[in-house]
Amino acid sequence: MSAPRIVLATRNAHKLDELHRILLASGLDVELVGAAAYPDLPDIPETESSFAGNALLKARAVAAATGLPAIADDSGLAVDALNGMPGVLSARWSGRHGNDRANLELLLGQMDDVPERRRGAAFHCAAAIALPDGTERVVEGSVEGVIIREPRGSGGFGYDPVFVPLGGARTLAEIPAAEKDAISHRGRALEALAPVVADLLG
Amino acid sequence: MSAPRIVLATRNAHKLDELHRILLASGLDVELVGAAAYPDLPDIPETESSFAGNALLKARAVAAATGLPAIADDSGLAVDALNGMPGVLSARWSGRHGNDRANLELLLGQMDDVPERRRGAAFHCAAAIALPDGTERVVEGSVEGVIIREPRGSGGFGYDPVFVPLGGARTLAEIPAAEKDAISHRGRALEALAPVVADLLG
Repeated sequence: MSAPRIVLATRNAHKLDELHRILLASGLDVELVGAAAYPDLPDIPETESSFAGNALLKARAVAAATGLPAIADDSGLAVDALNGMPGVLSARWSGRHGNDRANLELLLGQMDDVPERRRGAAFHCAAAIALPDGTERVVEGSVEGVIIREPRGSGGFGYDPVFVPLGGARTLAEIPAAEKDAISHRGRALEALAPVVADLLG
Repeated sequence: MSAPRIVLATRNAHKLDELHRILLASGLDVELVGAAAYPDLPDIPETESSFAGNALLKARAVAAATGLPAIADDSGLAVDALNGMPGVLSARWSGRHGNDRANLELLLGQMDDVPERRRGAAFHCAAAIALPDGTERVVEGSVEGVIIREPRGSGGFGYDPVFVPLGGARTLAEIPAAEKDAISHRGRALEALAPVVADLLG
């Protein structure tokens, strides 16, 4: 029997890379296809107020539209001094969806007067799988750290260049991919999702 | 005896107008002077995480620098879908302090996908008085409402054009000044502050 095909419900190339890398590293025997392979997928506004809600929303819609199991994630940065925002609005914080540089510069500008003692933050990720028959599961992962004042590093994406995980000295954009996956919110969420997927499709 | 002089700790012309108007309407017999009359005042970063903390910070610094009683306010918009932000960062939400249009456009962009049922918000204001001898008091006022999708009205300032108070149909920028003062967060805070001022300086 051939490996089951799963659609990864994202058109974000960086995210697709990470999802691919982490799920394959987990040893799942599946064929992963990006959402770009299904150009007729409807646009799914992320209208929920939680990462889990949005991840389920996307996985559910893609499973229904493709007739295949779909995995989606929703993730973001919860900054203490911003009461947990940008949160579910992380990707469109500047009002322009997916403009990493504008989002990051806005965040730093907003936190200009925020002193060192209040620069705590956490990345959160919810990873969901939905099957065409309506079955669905969602798990979460997170990583705590602080927001520094100037971007550092060229790896990763989004807010990675200004986020230093607790106990470390490098930003998520300065840490090699495999090392990042081991500690990151998305790495942890997908690590938790892998056995769930294996169980549902096994 | 001449009326005691009080310094209003703001250089924002709109805010100065409102403070002036409301305090004078309250019947306080005082001479109000804007911070612009004291060009050597230090710049006071609003580093506290609460409106009350920032109002006290400013009143305290101006009283110490001028040797006169000082009144300061700190206010902002707490949006439910943004976990209570922009909050204390309302005036610099776009990263550029005091750029009303940029702040308002950013807020509307961030809330583009937020459905009607989750567009609740409240304006909050903390008003503080500090005396050169170290005495200080702070009071608060607020008004609840919803964030609409397009600005309306030319009065007020800040986020007034997108805020419709509960039970009303007009934005704070469509309501005449005197009517706004009667229901607004700043109006209510200063109404509460007036007897405190009279008591301290009487």
